[in-house]
Amino acid sequence: MTVAELAALLTENGHPIDGPELDSLMRGIVAGPAALDDRWMDLIGADLKPEVKQQLDGFRSGFESDMATGLGIAPAPLDRLEKTRAMMRSSGVTALIVPRTDEYQGEYVSMRAERLQWLSGFAGSAGAAALKLDSAAIFVDGRYTLQVRDQVNTDVFTVRHISEEPLTAWIEEMCDASDKVGVDPWLHTRNSIKAIHAAVDKAGAELVLLPENPIDQAWDNQPSAPLAAVRPHEITYSGEESAEKRTKLADGLKSKGVKAAVLTASDSIAWLLNVRGGDVPRCPLPLSFAVLHDDAQVDWFIDPRKLVAGVTEHLGNGVTVAPIEEFSGKLGELGKAGSAVLADPASCPLHVFSVLEEAGATIVEGADPCTLPKAMKNKVELAGTRDAHRRDGAAVTRFLAWLPGAVAKGGVTELSASDALQAFRFRDEKIRDLSFDTISGAGPDGAIVHYRVTPETDRPLAEGELYLVDSGGQYLDGTTDITRTIALGEPSVEMRDRFTRVLKGHIAIATARFPKGVNGSQLDPLARQHLWRVGLDYDHGTGHGVGSYLNVHEGPQRIAKMPSAVPLAPGMILSNEPGFYKTGAYGIRIENLIVVEEYPELAEGEKPLYGFETITFAPIDRNLIERGLLNDEEVDWLNAYHAKVREIVMLQLTDRDDGPVRAFLEEATKPI
Amino acid sequence: MTVAELAALLTENGHPIDGPELDSLMRGIVAGPAALDDRWMDLIGADLKPEVKQQLDGFRSGFESDMATGLGIAPAPLDRLEKTRAMMRSSGVTALIVPRTDEYQGEYVSMRAERLQWLSGFAGSAGAAALKLDSAAIFVDGRYTLQVRDQVNTDVFTVRHISEEPLTAWIEEMCDASDKVGVDPWLHTRNSIKAIHAAVDKAGAELVLLPENPIDQAWDNQPSAPLAAVRPHEITYSGEESAEKRTKLADGLKSKGVKAAVLTASDSIAWLLNVRGGDVPRCPLPLSFAVLHDDAQVDWFIDPRKLVAGVTEHLGNGVTVAPIEEFSGKLGELGKAGSAVLADPASCPLHVFSVLEEAGATIVEGADPCTLPKAMKNKVELAGTRDAHRRDGAAVTRFLAWLPGAVAKGGVTELSASDALQAFRFRDEKIRDLSFDTISGAGPDGAIVHYRVTPETDRPLAEGELYLVDSGGQYLDGTTDITRTIALGEPSVEMRDRFTRVLKGHIAIATARFPKGVNGSQLDPLARQHLWRVGLDYDHGTGHGVGSYLNVHEGPQRIAKMPSAVPLAPGMILSNEPGFYKTGAYGIRIENLIVVEEYPELAEGEKPLYGFETITFAPIDRNLIERGLLNDEEVDWLNAYHAKVREIVMLQLTDRDDGPVRAFLEEATKPI
Repeated sequence: MTVAELAALLTENGHPIDGPELDSLMRGIVAGPAALDDRWMDLIGADLKPEVKQQLDGFRSGFESDMATGLGIAPAPLDRLEKTRAMMRSSGVTALIVPRTDEYQGEYVSMRAERLQWLSGFAGSAGAAALKLDSAAIFVDGRYTLQVRDQVNTDVFTVRHISEEPLTAWIEEMCDASDKVGVDPWLHTRNSIKAIHAAVDKAGAELVLLPENPIDQAWDNQPSAPLAAVRPHEITYSGEESAEKRTKLADGLKSKGVKAAVLTASDSIAWLLNVRGGDVPRCPLPLSFAVLHDDAQVDWFIDPRKLVAGVTEHLGNGVTVAPIEEFSGKLGELGKAGSAVLADPASCPLHVFSVLEEAGATIVEGADPCTLPKAMKNKVELAGTRDAHRRDGAAVTRFLAWLPGAVAKGGVTELSASDALQAFRFRDEKIRDLSFDTISGAGPDGAIVHYRVTPETDRPLAEGELYLVDSGGQYLDGTTDITRTIALGEPSVEMRDRFTRVLKGHIAIATARFPKGVNGSQLDPLARQHLWRVGLDYDHGTGHGVGSYLNVHEGPQRIAKMPSAVPLAPGMILSNEPGFYKTGAYGIRIENLIVVEEYPELAEGEKPLYGFETITFAPIDRNLIERGLLNDEEVDWLNAYHAKVREIVMLQLTDRDDGPVRAFLEEATKPI
Repeated sequence: MTVAELAALLTENGHPIDGPELDSLMRGIVAGPAALDDRWMDLIGADLKPEVKQQLDGFRSGFESDMATGLGIAPAPLDRLEKTRAMMRSSGVTALIVPRTDEYQGEYVSMRAERLQWLSGFAGSAGAAALKLDSAAIFVDGRYTLQVRDQVNTDVFTVRHISEEPLTAWIEEMCDASDKVGVDPWLHTRNSIKAIHAAVDKAGAELVLLPENPIDQAWDNQPSAPLAAVRPHEITYSGEESAEKRTKLADGLKSKGVKAAVLTASDSIAWLLNVRGGDVPRCPLPLSFAVLHDDAQVDWFIDPRKLVAGVTEHLGNGVTVAPIEEFSGKLGELGKAGSAVLADPASCPLHVFSVLEEAGATIVEGADPCTLPKAMKNKVELAGTRDAHRRDGAAVTRFLAWLPGAVAKGGVTELSASDALQAFRFRDEKIRDLSFDTISGAGPDGAIVHYRVTPETDRPLAEGELYLVDSGGQYLDGTTDITRTIALGEPSVEMRDRFTRVLKGHIAIATARFPKGVNGSQLDPLARQHLWRVGLDYDHGTGHGVGSYLNVHEGPQRIAKMPSAVPLAPGMILSNEPGFYKTGAYGIRIENLIVVEEYPELAEGEKPLYGFETITFAPIDRNLIERGLLNDEEVDWLNAYHAKVREIVMLQLTDRDDGPVRAFLEEATKPI
């Protein structure tokens, strides 16, 4: 079926659209994440007939093949590099910085923004490239040192360690007074450009903010900007009307004499407007920009085709929608009016600052005003997330119950286990996506902290090994993230010792109490102390912030070694995930989500007293616990936790085939 | 006796000196700390006859009265401010910054450098003033908000909180393009001037580095630079020859391509040259400057009159002594040679950088190279400090044994208790000074963290109150610092609860184990966790570094909330001093010194495993411990600690009158 034919069919069925319109729409749709269901069809029309849906489904598959981006080709064909250099020449620059970030600075980017991968072939989640007209370098971290050599032509790209031989050092080594170093001002924040700018200055070269990205100019069939439906995030989930949030923030702006705040972080905008989208995988985010004025009005810059039926009404008349291309113009207007404008140097593109400054705005640098209120969840959000966690706990428990028998039968691999877990989760009506790519690591793969299983690395789950699975779901009412480590067969004495030390750290965080003012870096050592005691540690943070049907990694809260200036506050959701990794042997991690809560009746000082509520419920493998290493309080915590897991998850296990799961749960949550 | 007469007497007795020489020498001597014994007379000659010593002693008293500086007058006479302004005018500045620091940036300054006190009357240990020609402000922290109003004329000086209404804000408020803001480049470091410079720039004013300090010009009878004897710090105490230290550091410089390092921190120089002095109270420091060359030669800039018999031989021919006035000239030479010169922006005066830069040096900014090796004590230093602590523990135990009876008899006050403790310490042959002014706080005074008892605030020690005493000694073989909190009579339930929580934190630090790489800010929460549990905390660090017969506060090691980039390393001495303070009621602190040690046989990972050895031995008040709040491991630690206290201190209690002390010790160290 051609586009024109499909357009005719749709028009016939009461969804009038012409061929070019449909073509453009489909290009945007396939530029987003793969379809997990047929909800994407809402972009074409509401209440489509089943036979139309079937046609659309088939058409999308064909269209996806036609639109193949060549992103998967590794190493990338060399003509991409040459075309890019031609564009650099015509832009008058002799060097170009290619970050992996996009203009929204989120953890995931759309296909359109996969410039680093298109240019080099490198498909990792972090990195950068730097080009001169006669040389090129690619910068990756420790996770990707092997992968980069598989995916990138190292005759052309010199591989450098991103922190040991950083981009700034490359600039100083490779550039001199004759160089003009080009950057795309949409892809760097004011903070992230500082070190680059300093290095360019030190080299005596010139930094050039490019009006057009040379890669976009060189990339013939670059995907469109993604088009995924934007839907209301209903008050039953958000707990606070957008208008109310906007008024509060606007009052905050007014009190600081600020006329408007520029918002470019997708999760901030989604939170403020009570909407969710799907432009990137794993996070329900519409990519867009916004300006919040001190009268609580919002200008929202987004492709209006994303706004499916009902969204405009949901937004109300406090929100003006405009095409994303008008964003820069609006910044210029604010500048011309000489307004004081708030922008976050850690998240807003450099471009925002340039436009504002040139137009004459007074820039007030400060944190994105949505960040803190978004992090401190309200009662409705917390009730929703608790409920999502109960159902998620049931899915994980079904998986844990299924696993030992399946492994014994044979044929279970990291990939198939991960698929099974996903299927258990997708039994739930409110799930919309996973919250991140499942980390499913057996034996030595478990020791790779950011392991992402592929058909090439897939490994059978074998007796005598540990299996680590870190996974989560995006439910309409909450985002989950849980890690369990399971002993397949009999674990070694060392495994039990390490697991128990990790568990002791997990319990220390779960039971911590602290006055207002304490931050996560001050709690971090409590999680590590029992590993430290024998000279061990783990090389990642203990906890990250978690959104409410939003990013599974959100700030400003975190529990980590890195100093933090943001104290923990009631309603913040965090992960509690100490671990231990023995390279080439096994990995251990125990992760629950926790919520900061206040205990007014227990505070003996003048400051409010805080602690954590654990909201994740699934058994922790008792076979891995060395009872003698736990003190009485720790045993009490574990037994009480397991009693609660049993009580809560049992209520969820009402499916016809849940009989064996109930038996498993009963056994797995017995007191130790 | 006149100076001339005394000079004649000395000459007669084989110590030839003329009147003017003696006058100048005596001016320097009385500009140093008060005499605790007659060792200062070594500056006049070795082996003085007793009758000559007696004459000198009387002469010094008279001379001190004659040289009265007027520093104690508070508020300061207004003509000092007017004279200073006249000097500002003739220097061409309209504003002047007056810090409390001197050119050595130490914790204590000599009388000559008490410019802030001379100008204002304020005698606190931290603060600053800022003058314009028609206004003045004084900046103090929370400790001094009451004191400053007693000591300073607030009609003339506006009092500002040093961090809430800081100097930088004052500059921005008070200065504009018409202002020239003067600073003495000897009194600011490159780091400390940055914020001031930025504020001056922001105000549109100009920063002027003054060649002469206007206060020195205005201060008629400003004391001389202090003259205290410099003595060898023998190898039996230092454990490493100076030549060896110099060679190691020089090798480090060479490996970095650095020609010379500028040393301005008095304790660094004392450590490097294995000498001790007495120019400021409580720290055995000679004030001086030094340059270490990459061939291990040192140019030492110091008044040669300080070098008493034997020191020159001790220094050997690797050290060239020159008058302190030649320091700037030597920096100029280094600069003219175009050398790469290492200077620490955190400790070196701005003046050093200016001179080096003007002369053409390549400045390498980096940490003072003595800091880290000085902090990691060698075996001989550790053996010495352990021995000093045994004797110090006996002195403290004698005091603790004496106290209850004396309080019961009545008449014991904070001052008299502090004097008694000093007397017990001074029974030791190797003691040379206290290591800081004793904090002796009864009842509510104990809650004032930096309390310094004066005749005006002196308070009797009364039954039903807590008494907190924080004190230490400077012994030839080590520096001590110990705090004990004693219940006079029956403590309340709350006092016992708080004391026990503090003790639990103390034990958590004492028993901590951790891999190489962990820093003190990561251990700090372990000390606070049991107070945090009920919403309480204390507003000071948990531990500071301690020198080896050197500063009782030394870096870079510390245990504190403030982020630290320096991992703990074997041989570092720290204090372990959690506390709790209830304003207006009582203060609690338990302080022992601890040494970082390695446990090779216990490490189960690849990294070395560290922990602490406690080296302070004196009973912890058992009446303040709530047994039920301690777990078994904590009880075990306390009982084992007390058993060791008994064993170690008992061996020291060999004086004739120690009978009752031995009985007290027996009782005070019983297991709980």
